Amino acid sequence: MADEKWKSTITNIGPGKIEVRGYPIEQLMEHRSFADVIFLTLKGELPEPAEAEMFEAILVSSVDHGVSPPSVLGARNSISAGNALNAAVAAGILSIGDVHGGAIEQAARIMQEWVRKPGSPTELARQLVDELTAKNRRMPGYGHRLHSTDPRTVKLFEKAERLKFSGRHIELCKEIENALEAKSGKRLPINVDGAIAAVTSDMGFDYRLGKGFFILSRTVGLIAHAFEEWTTQRPMRKLGDTNCEYIGPARRDVGSTDES
Amino acid sequence: MADEKWKSTITNIGPGKIEVRGYPIEQLMEHRSFADVIFLTLKGELPEPAEAEMFEAILVSSVDHGVSPPSVLGARNSISAGNALNAAVAAGILSIGDVHGGAIEQAARIMQEWVRKPGSPTELARQLVDELTAKNRRMPGYGHRLHSTDPRTVKLFEKAERLKFSGRHIELCKEIENALEAKSGKRLPINVDGAIAAVTSDMGFDYRLGKGFFILSRTVGLIAHAFEEWTTQRPMRKLGDTNCEYIGPARRDVGSTDES
Amino acid sequence: MADEKWKSTITNIGPGKIEVRGYPIEQLMEHRSFADVIFLTLKGELPEPAEAEMFEAILVSSVDHGVSPPSVLGARNSISAGNALNAAVAAGILSIGDVHGGAIEQAARIMQEWVRKPGSPTELARQLVDELTAKNRRMPGYGHRLHSTDPRTVKLFEKAERLKFSGRHIELCKEIENALEAKSGKRLPINVDGAIAAVTSDMGFDYRLGKGFFILSRTVGLIAHAFEEWTTQRPMRKLGDTNCEYIGPARRDVGSTDES
Amino acid sequence: MADEKWKSTITNIGPGKIEVRGYPIEQLMEHRSFADVIFLTLKGELPEPAEAEMFEAILVSSVDHGVSPPSVLGARNSISAGNALNAAVAAGILSIGDVHGGAIEQAARIMQEWVRKPGSPTELARQLVDELTAKNRRMPGYGHRLHSTDPRTVKLFEKAERLKFSGRHIELCKEIENALEAKSGKRLPINVDGAIAAVTSDMGFDYRLGKGFFILSRTVGLIAHAFEEWTTQRPMRKLGDTNCEYIGPARRDVGSTDES
Repeated sequence: MADEKWKSTITNIGPGKIEVRGYPIEQLMEHRSFADVIFLTLKGELPEPAEAEMFEAILVSSVDHGVSPPSVLGARNSISAGNALNAAVAAGILSIGDVHGGAIEQAARIMQEWVRKPGSPTELARQLVDELTAKNRRMPGYGHRLHSTDPRTVKLFEKAERLKFSGRHIELCKEIENALEAKSGKRLPINVDGAIAAVTSDMGFDYRLGKGFFILSRTVGLIAHAFEEWTTQRPMRKLGDTNCEYIGPARRDVGSTDES
Repeated sequence: MADEKWKSTITNIGPGKIEVRGYPIEQLMEHRSFADVIFLTLKGELPEPAEAEMFEAILVSSVDHGVSPPSVLGARNSISAGNALNAAVAAGILSIGDVHGGAIEQAARIMQEWVRKPGSPTELARQLVDELTAKNRRMPGYGHRLHSTDPRTVKLFEKAERLKFSGRHIELCKEIENALEAKSGKRLPINVDGAIAAVTSDMGFDYRLGKGFFILSRTVGLIAHAFEEWTTQRPMRKLGDTNCEYIGPARRDVGSTDES
Repeated sequence: MADEKWKSTITNIGPGKIEVRGYPIEQLMEHRSFADVIFLTLKGELPEPAEAEMFEAILVSSVDHGVSPPSVLGARNSISAGNALNAAVAAGILSIGDVHGGAIEQAARIMQEWVRKPGSPTELARQLVDELTAKNRRMPGYGHRLHSTDPRTVKLFEKAERLKFSGRHIELCKEIENALEAKSGKRLPINVDGAIAAVTSDMGFDYRLGKGFFILSRTVGLIAHAFEEWTTQRPMRKLGDTNCEYIGPARRDVGSTDES
Repeated sequence: MADEKWKSTITNIGPGKIEVRGYPIEQLMEHRSFADVIFLTLKGELPEPAEAEMFEAILVSSVDHGVSPPSVLGARNSISAGNALNAAVAAGILSIGDVHGGAIEQAARIMQEWVRKPGSPTELARQLVDELTAKNRRMPGYGHRLHSTDPRTVKLFEKAERLKFSGRHIELCKEIENALEAKSGKRLPINVDGAIAAVTSDMGFDYRLGKGFFILSRTVGLIAHAFEEWTTQRPMRKLGDTNCEYIGPARRDVGSTDES
């Protein structure tokens, strides 16, 4: 039926032709990094240099967080029961949700709505925090169970400053931290979800892609964990006690010789 | 119970500490690309420069292939029925399988088994093709429905040659192409799955990670398609007719100014 | 940690002991139907006779609806790409969502909220329809793309009447149909989702179980379709054109001799 | 394209018409139980009375086994992270696999292959066990971690005997138990998976439906667990310690008044 056809803007395919957002795949393979092409595929345009460097760091930031997050438990649990790698990864992604990784979307939605309002970031942050407090709601993207200072957040903002990459969303997100402290008397620091929300919003990404950045990054860890479970553990062991012992390489530094 | 504890080699976590394979996450965010950190997380070590460049190209190669692959149908179909982005991506990944993306694992398993045997690549390829023919089985990773010359495969081998990145698996994979032609009288070219199988095998990756490379790359497209469906199409439309019209940007080149 | 323990009310397990909601499994296997035990597991108590008969009919009603629903496409698409049966069923269930099967939960939530308000069903229905109209929202559970008279809905209400099984939710649900017609001038009949919402609400089920009834019923069809795809179709065929030809048995009647 | 059309034998749909395997849905809703209609949908024909009673018992047998199976962990873990009920059920089903629930398919495949061979069940069982021992492989469907005598298996065979429902697969399955004991000197009793494999094989079901019976039955428990997690536990709690306390109803009997 005519009304069942649709139009897509993503990739143009033909014999010997694969063009992503207009660019031939072989040119992208030659000239651009994986992170650049993710940016292109999701946003429609290649990143500017500062955006490109920020975006690499965002994707690196969430690749893994050890064995305890629900998504890792989901992936290991599935492969341990005798499933294929793709099924295990899917199970892991089904344990990303509003409460695990979902704060990026939630925070970005609020930020994208509030930066459009009139007022300085300081004023807007105060109004927002008042409104959330009145509704007895938490601001998503602030606070972390484990990290009082999260090295990922520190690095993201340090990079943004150095690259002079910062816009109204990042400003607002910092003022929200101040406003939360002013309201409650204690510091509830921006966490990595909140930082990613702010930075990707300044890059012009729709908040509805929020879970997508986390999925892309954490799928790396999910595959590593599913593979480790598959190749080193006995099937259907009790996965309960996640206080596992880390037995990987000792701390080491990314040497300057590694940088090309 | 004591026997329920396990050991993991991937990430070491503590308050303010996230070390992936030993490297502090903030150093990786500062000095390394997303593709480098994927390599590290999956393999345990950072890539050498030639490996790093090859690996970026591998991950770029499969980000999207338009609307027709089953995984895209799976993702669009799920979000169209009113599901969250992560559920839609999971549905897409559940439509990657032995027949769609699975040839990387299958081809890599065969290649990793055969390069260990005595004999030259030419001899091994001939024996392998004879054996497959006798068992009436296809060699996975050769031939493509649409592309007689796949620009992704061409680029991967061109890059490997230029970077002098080539080992026994790539040699064997090329000889298999010759042996298949000698046997059948027609050219059945290596496809992108076969090429990725050979290159990642030369990088030392276990064949059981084969589906993982494809999942990481194609998840980019799955998110873009799910997002496009979500934000531009009406819910629960008939997704049947995938002969959709491409309405994105016209062909354009990755300019040299884009290269930093 | 102490705070990580939790309590469950569903099944008590020990060596040689499986008690579902207190009942030994072997007694349930001897004396009760599958539908009765579903009722027990989800609600905590065995059904009364009228509830039992209604509940069987509810579960039968949605077992399958041919090849076109998104969940069937999801399941067939996954197994066609070379996945295991459980992965294909999961993909199908990920294509049940707010728009496909989700109306049960949505309608039940509204009905369970409104029956608690003061007023006759007629008055409440009128207020509800006015409120929805004012907010420019549809009442979920009314209208169907294909069926102007849905044989499943007719049978559910016929059975409820004969069994004298009817409470405030069913009354309200019928009055909503009248109120919708009064408002719009055309009949928008209760569909099978709306009917299941009303009947399960009168049985005392929480509306948040709404998707569960549909999942249980439709999983039957998903397994049948995945199996048919797996055993009769070639892998990774284009699943687009769902106007398939039905080639199963011709119409036949459930004979009276079948009734025990 | 012409070659993309396909034929299906499951359900015939039209306006006001839903015929499953030829039977109008309203007749099935009136005269048949949910289990009968599952049998019909999967097999193409309604069950005979003895088959119907056996099939109800099979579906009842595996509805739940407490909090510890991987599939329950998968479902609770997903909903705990903030996902919809259908996504949580899908995550649970993705933790059913070759090692959890998969023995039905594996055992049925072996049984369906061996009953076709010449020889008495006793001889065939001995040959089969010899062959498995020579290949250093286990016979799937025998032995259980927790239950030395599994009440579900006992009841299934008791019912089969009483109903005079027994064929070559059940005979073979019992002889395998004897042959395993003769070989190893210790009793490795048929478990519920093995029993279901034998009984459904005698009903004429293809072994490839094996996981399907378990999925249908256990989805009941998955929904109950996901609902309990959703409505009584705090989000994203550590799900590790599955030694939870059972706090449901005390043991009680299925009264004779319940039997209609």
